[in-house]
Amino acid sequence: MNTTMLKKKYYVHTQGICETRFVGPRTKIWAFTHVLPKAQIGSDVNLCDHVFVENDVTIGNRVTVKCFVALWDGLRIEDDVFIGPGVVFANDKYTRSKMYLPSFPKTVIRKGASIGAGAVILPGIEVGAYAMVAAGAVVTKNVAPFELVRGIPARRKGSVCKCGFPLKKHKMQWRCVRSGWHGARPSPEMDCVR
Amino acid sequence: MNTTMLKKKYYVHTQGICETRFVGPRTKIWAFTHVLPKAQIGSDVNLCDHVFVENDVTIGNRVTVKCFVALWDGLRIEDDVFIGPGVVFANDKYTRSKMYLPSFPKTVIRKGASIGAGAVILPGIEVGAYAMVAAGAVVTKNVAPFELVRGIPARRKGSVCKCGFPLKKHKMQWRCVRSGWHGARPSPEMDCVR
Amino acid sequence: MNTTMLKKKYYVHTQGICETRFVGPRTKIWAFTHVLPKAQIGSDVNLCDHVFVENDVTIGNRVTVKCFVALWDGLRIEDDVFIGPGVVFANDKYTRSKMYLPSFPKTVIRKGASIGAGAVILPGIEVGAYAMVAAGAVVTKNVAPFELVRGIPARRKGSVCKCGFPLKKHKMQWRCVRSGWHGARPSPEMDCVR
Repeated sequence: MNTTMLKKKYYVHTQGICETRFVGPRTKIWAFTHVLPKAQIGSDVNLCDHVFVENDVTIGNRVTVKCFVALWDGLRIEDDVFIGPGVVFANDKYTRSKMYLPSFPKTVIRKGASIGAGAVILPGIEVGAYAMVAAGAVVTKNVAPFELVRGIPARRKGSVCKCGFPLKKHKMQWRCVRSGWHGARPSPEMDCVR
Repeated sequence: MNTTMLKKKYYVHTQGICETRFVGPRTKIWAFTHVLPKAQIGSDVNLCDHVFVENDVTIGNRVTVKCFVALWDGLRIEDDVFIGPGVVFANDKYTRSKMYLPSFPKTVIRKGASIGAGAVILPGIEVGAYAMVAAGAVVTKNVAPFELVRGIPARRKGSVCKCGFPLKKHKMQWRCVRSGWHGARPSPEMDCVR
Repeated sequence: MNTTMLKKKYYVHTQGICETRFVGPRTKIWAFTHVLPKAQIGSDVNLCDHVFVENDVTIGNRVTVKCFVALWDGLRIEDDVFIGPGVVFANDKYTRSKMYLPSFPKTVIRKGASIGAGAVILPGIEVGAYAMVAAGAVVTKNVAPFELVRGIPARRKGSVCKCGFPLKKHKMQWRCVRSGWHGARPSPEMDCVR
C-alpha cells in the first residue's frame, strides 16, 4: 500500500461503508455501497451505489461497477473491466443454506472485458480480455478474449473490438464498425479506443 | 415547480437521499433510495427501497418503482407506469469502462405500461402505452401499445387490457378476461380499470 | 415470541433497519437491509446486505438470503432455504401501477430448497422441499421436491440430493455424485449433508 493510499486520496460517500484500507487513489465508493475489510481495490475505480464487496476480492484499476452488484469471495476483476447494473455472480454451484465449500472457485474477469446489464455469471468462469457479455446472458462456460456472447445459456455471437463495438470479417481481415480499424486479429495492444 | 412542491409535501425516509427539489406532492421516497439533483419526479410516485435515479431522468405521475431498480440518464417514464423489482435498464450497447458516449439514447416507457420483475431493457427502447413486459424478459426491440411480450429475446405473446389482464379476440372483438369489456381495439380512453 | 427474542439476542448492523420484534436468536441482519414491522423471522437466519422484507412474510430457521432480494407480502420461506443473490419474486401477474389485488397469491419455498442467483419466481409458485432452481431460471410452474429446474421458462433437468449435489439413477437406485449415498428415492430424512 503506497503513501498516496494512506493519505486516503479516495472518496467514500457519507452513506457508503468502506472497511478496507486497500483502495487506490481517485477511486470513488458511492452511497449504500459496502466493502469488507480485506478487499483490494485499485485506482480510478468507480463503485456506484448499492454495491457489495466481500473480503477475498481483488479489483484492478479503472474498473466500473454499476448498481446492485455483489462481488463474492473468489472474484478477480482485472484492469479496465466494466460490470453492468444488476450483474449477478454465483460462487457455489450446488448451494444449500449453511453448507459451505472448503474453498470457492475463482471467477476471473480479464482486462478490459464488459459484463452487460443483468447478466448471470456461474461459478469458476473466466471471461477473456476485452470480451463482451450481452445484457441478460447466463454465462455457463468460459468466454474467449474479444468474444461476444449472448443468450441463455450464453453462446458466441461474434467478436468485439477493444473499443467495444462489433468487429466484422472483411477480406480476411477484422474491421471495427465504428473506427474502421482493421487487422489480422484484435489484440490488447491494438489502437482503437473511444 | 409549484408552491406545493416548495413546501415539500412529499416524503423522504430518514435513510433515503433525495437531492432533487423537483418532486411532486404525495410522492414517497423510501429507505436506501438515492435521487440525484436534476431528476424530475411527478406526484403520487412511489420509489420503493433501494432505487437509484440519475440526473437526466423524468418520472411522471402515479408511477411505481419497486426495489433494486436504477434509472439512468436518458430515461423517460410517463404517467402510471409500473417498474417491477430488479428491472435492469442499459444505456450503452457497447460499453467499456471509462469510455463514454457523446450522448445517451433515450429509453421511453409510455403511459400506463408495466415492466415485469427482473426484465432487462436494452438501450434506446420504447415500450408503448399500456404494454406489458413479462417477468424475466430481455427486451431488444420496441414494444407496441397494449402488447404483451415475453422471453429472451422478448417476443409478442398477446395483448393486454388497460387493467393489465389479457385481452382475447372473440367474434372480431377484443374482450378483457377479467371485466368482460369488449370493443374493436383497446385504447387509452377505454374504461377498464381495477 | 420467547424470552430469548425479547432480550434481542439477534444482530442488526448499525446501517440495517429492523422494525419487527419477531426475530429468532442468532439471526443476523446486515447493512442496508430493511425489515418491516410484521415480518416473522426464525433463528440462525442470515439476511445479507441490501435485502427488503415486507410485512406478510414468514422466514423459517437457518435460512440464508443473499444481497438484492426483496421478499414481498405473501411469501412463506420454510427452514433451511437458500435464496441466492439477485433472486426476484413477483406477487402480481397482471400488475398495473396503483391497481391492487384483493389479496396476494401465496408463494411457498419449502424446507431446504435453494433458489439460484438471479432466478425469477412468478406469483403463487410452490418450490418443493430440497428442490434446486438453477441460476438465471424463470420459474413459471411449481417445482417438485428434490427436482432441479433450469432455463426460461424453467424445466426439469434432473434431481438433486439433500446436500445439493446431483443425483444419478444407477441400477434402479438414486446415487449422490458427491457422497455415494444411494437409495430408492431421496427424502427429507435421508442422511447426506455436507
